Amino acid sequence: MTATTRTRLSPDERREQLLELGLRLFAGSSIDEISIDRLSEEAGISRGLLYHYFGSKQGFREAVVQRAADDLVAQTAPPEGDDPIAKLLASLTAYVDYVIANHQGYRSLVLAAAGGNEAVRAIYERARTRMIDRTFETPGVEALLVDTPRTRLVVRGWVAFVEDTVLTWCDDANGVTRDELVQIVTDALPALVGTAD
Amino acid sequence: MTATTRTRLSPDERREQLLELGLRLFAGSSIDEISIDRLSEEAGISRGLLYHYFGSKQGFREAVVQRAADDLVAQTAPPEGDDPIAKLLASLTAYVDYVIANHQGYRSLVLAAAGGNEAVRAIYERARTRMIDRTFETPGVEALLVDTPRTRLVVRGWVAFVEDTVLTWCDDANGVTRDELVQIVTDALPALVGTAD
Repeated sequence: MTATTRTRLSPDERREQLLELGLRLFAGSSIDEISIDRLSEEAGISRGLLYHYFGSKQGFREAVVQRAADDLVAQTAPPEGDDPIAKLLASLTAYVDYVIANHQGYRSLVLAAAGGNEAVRAIYERARTRMIDRTFETPGVEALLVDTPRTRLVVRGWVAFVEDTVLTWCDDANGVTRDELVQIVTDALPALVGTAD
Repeated sequence: MTATTRTRLSPDERREQLLELGLRLFAGSSIDEISIDRLSEEAGISRGLLYHYFGSKQGFREAVVQRAADDLVAQTAPPEGDDPIAKLLASLTAYVDYVIANHQGYRSLVLAAAGGNEAVRAIYERARTRMIDRTFETPGVEALLVDTPRTRLVVRGWVAFVEDTVLTWCDDANGVTRDELVQIVTDALPALVGTAD
């Protein structure tokens, strides 16, 4: 990458390029391991310019995590259609594939959200809440779940079930196939909601 | 507390007294907030003696967390009996009551186990594994679940479901009663296992 290439990018394009690089690093390592040095080297820019765009190392990490959370929410959006179970299955297939593709980064996102990093926690909590709200807002979902305090509690717990099950499976699939995994986490929602009614 | 009281306790009794004090503090605050100063003040001993018994602040915290994890495993042991669902219900009632009684400390245990504290993570992971193994070893459980890679995965995910649901409920019960909560987390196991078969 040369100075010529650099001048061709607008500030927005440059910011976008840096975020995408960050996401690539994020996919294979934990949030705290995203190296500013490696990043500025790969992007062919100075550390100073990186700080110019994101304020600080922490600011850059938060922007990458925010983008990862936005991607997760967008990629797992339920498709059009009438069958709530088919939509759930499509959404969870996309979720499982997202976690497989971004294993280390996603694990670190869930751990950071559970642990002490407040900014990351808030970003992930918003994404999680968005996905839970969306579950209740999906057209046709009334056949599957009614919005009550009990089902809200169960759907939240189901999200924890899905996260834990998929991450455990990534560590050791133990003969369970991806399709079986998707089926398990999909069937779990109506099964759990059924018990809360 | 006076020097006279102090000399009456054997080293084992003193260690036990310190652990019990630690557990009392643990119940109402996070692991990292257990104050050595407050503890030595309440026990009427010097910080030096505390270090003598536990090696370090971190050593004391780990001993308290180990005791808390042991208590959790012991208190949630399934009772004698033939009905696996009745045993599960009794075990989860004890679990919910344990979390209610030790809310802050238990939350901090789960968060520390998820987050960066490796020693605490290992302690809690052993307790969690012990509870999962016990679920599979309970006499009469064959009627409820068969030990396969799929059910292992689901039972582990169910534990995450239970932890998240009970902690969310502790923050905001939202009209759901303790008995309803116990029923939800109990019914969840056969419901989830049913989908994995």
